[in-house]
Amino acid sequence: MTINFTPGPSQLYFTVENHVRQAFREGVPSLSHRTKEFESISKNATAGLKELLGIPPDFHVLFTGSATEVWERSIQNLVENKSLHFVNGAFSKRYFEIATQLGKTPTKIEAATGQGFDSNFIVDHDTELIALTHNETSTGVSLPIPFINQFREKFPQSLIVVDSVSSLPYPQFDYSKIDSVFFSVQKGFGLPAGLGVWIVNDRCVAKAESLLSRGVSIGTYHNLPTLIANAKKHQTPETPNVLGIYLLSKVVQDFLRRGIHILRKETEYKAAILYQALTTHKLAQPFVTDPQFRSQTVIVAQSGENTERITKHLQSHQFYPGDGYGDQKKHQLRFANFPTHSKETFEQLVDLLEKIN
Amino acid sequence: MTINFTPGPSQLYFTVENHVRQAFREGVPSLSHRTKEFESISKNATAGLKELLGIPPDFHVLFTGSATEVWERSIQNLVENKSLHFVNGAFSKRYFEIATQLGKTPTKIEAATGQGFDSNFIVDHDTELIALTHNETSTGVSLPIPFINQFREKFPQSLIVVDSVSSLPYPQFDYSKIDSVFFSVQKGFGLPAGLGVWIVNDRCVAKAESLLSRGVSIGTYHNLPTLIANAKKHQTPETPNVLGIYLLSKVVQDFLRRGIHILRKETEYKAAILYQALTTHKLAQPFVTDPQFRSQTVIVAQSGENTERITKHLQSHQFYPGDGYGDQKKHQLRFANFPTHSKETFEQLVDLLEKIN
Repeated sequence: MTINFTPGPSQLYFTVENHVRQAFREGVPSLSHRTKEFESISKNATAGLKELLGIPPDFHVLFTGSATEVWERSIQNLVENKSLHFVNGAFSKRYFEIATQLGKTPTKIEAATGQGFDSNFIVDHDTELIALTHNETSTGVSLPIPFINQFREKFPQSLIVVDSVSSLPYPQFDYSKIDSVFFSVQKGFGLPAGLGVWIVNDRCVAKAESLLSRGVSIGTYHNLPTLIANAKKHQTPETPNVLGIYLLSKVVQDFLRRGIHILRKETEYKAAILYQALTTHKLAQPFVTDPQFRSQTVIVAQSGENTERITKHLQSHQFYPGDGYGDQKKHQLRFANFPTHSKETFEQLVDLLEKIN
Repeated sequence: MTINFTPGPSQLYFTVENHVRQAFREGVPSLSHRTKEFESISKNATAGLKELLGIPPDFHVLFTGSATEVWERSIQNLVENKSLHFVNGAFSKRYFEIATQLGKTPTKIEAATGQGFDSNFIVDHDTELIALTHNETSTGVSLPIPFINQFREKFPQSLIVVDSVSSLPYPQFDYSKIDSVFFSVQKGFGLPAGLGVWIVNDRCVAKAESLLSRGVSIGTYHNLPTLIANAKKHQTPETPNVLGIYLLSKVVQDFLRRGIHILRKETEYKAAILYQALTTHKLAQPFVTDPQFRSQTVIVAQSGENTERITKHLQSHQFYPGDGYGDQKKHQLRFANFPTHSKETFEQLVDLLEKIN
């Protein structure tokens, strides 16, 4: 069996195929979303996610088509003029660009590729939204939780939005320090692509309503007030990806049964042994040099001219690493470390890497 | 086995479950969209659709999250100020409202519920977009093709956009007379929900580019220029519903093998026998009285106080009619007539209806 380490879409979680079979037996793929059955599925998914991630009651769980859509909707609904973006790779940069495309006047604070942000930065106090990319999928740089938590006290008027596309369910956020997080299901949750999850608190809803009352365009069927009004009834404004929401509810139950604490500990163990193997390796090194900024869920190896050699060796054992991102395609390798990747798999991966020497 | 006549999501097309099994064997649910394999799937889906529907080469097939999304994106990308909407039910009305929500100044021409439009209407010649709902799912009123075809000559400057959500693949449009059509896959194509298909010609692309060049906001990742630039490479801007696109490509191939001519003839046969049965029925009548405006794909029965009696009778034979829409929920029944509903099924349905007498 091949094992896929590309950081999303990654491997399916191992229970998904069974859940799909069950979905067909229950008629889920053709279930109308205007039924009690759908509302029950939707409620299971949102309540399960809140339990799994420790999300407080005043947050709402909303469904979109993709996390890319949330980049657009969050700027549209939460910013009249000024957003601030911490940019350290292709995905955080795209979030910034979307704010520009929407006619806002975003600013950015940049870090060099592979580096974290230093703590001497200047932020305008009237910044409406601070956009943080918890895990920059292109480079494997992660923001430490204390870095994220510093903003609330310093900028109490700003909404703090965390892109957690390739890190959840791993990070344990302090939800009193942030206002919104979002992710897509094809990464850490190991599901087929085609569903984004946007989590917001009531401050976000109030901001969107305030923009709307002042005539700012916040979109239509997927503006926050419409999404929230539907979510309160466990509904969606449009016909959603019903099968995707069902599968999410099922995998969240699987994760709850295993226990989020165990999932997190395993993630850290797997990351630790892979970083350790890379640190002492002759053909590759961890790309992110400062351990405090190293992602636990997307581990990037600087493999330079050895990239092809390592790839071929791993592939000959049915282990498929992800390419480097963009212009690093032939110089780096990326390894997703998601709940679907078992400890044994990572131990084998480390073993294979060490045998190339 | 139960048979579901709700007009969307309706029954799955009978081949879908097998295609899903095949998808798992081929690794499609976790396939990265940035691969040659995905591009090949995407190309199969779009080329197959163009062949099936007889769409000319200068049209582009684009993927969205839903048809609801296309309501928003089409107004955003094709209208600076003025759109005109032919409104004869809940869904055509919602399209009009979305234009209002986006800050445009739409106008509407209304027909009474269950009625067609008469041909004496006044349209401003500077209307940028004429929005036609081919099949109003809430009432079962359909626009005759000649009605749609009249606009091009009279209003050569306007873009003509046809919402075909609950009618395609049945209608044979004259694509030289329209600029855009769209649908969602969970109706006539019998697929799991979570994918919209937006088909546009180069006039639409030119209009979006012109709006963009004059500083009008046309959205971000799903604006037309971005969708088109990706579609030309058989790509999508965001991680899309890969499994949904795969299943669409497969069902389109199934439809091509059966032949669109046969699908259309069967649709007309099934509609004819059901309308005939309703016309002579003691407990229900066709809601749309004028045959020229009767939908072939969503057949609405005015069943009044007999609604529950008919429903129970049909359900006792595992035939599930759709409720009436909105405030007609307890007074009407809706019957989807999609390719998944066989001739034999409709003959049985008619038989069952006649036996209530």
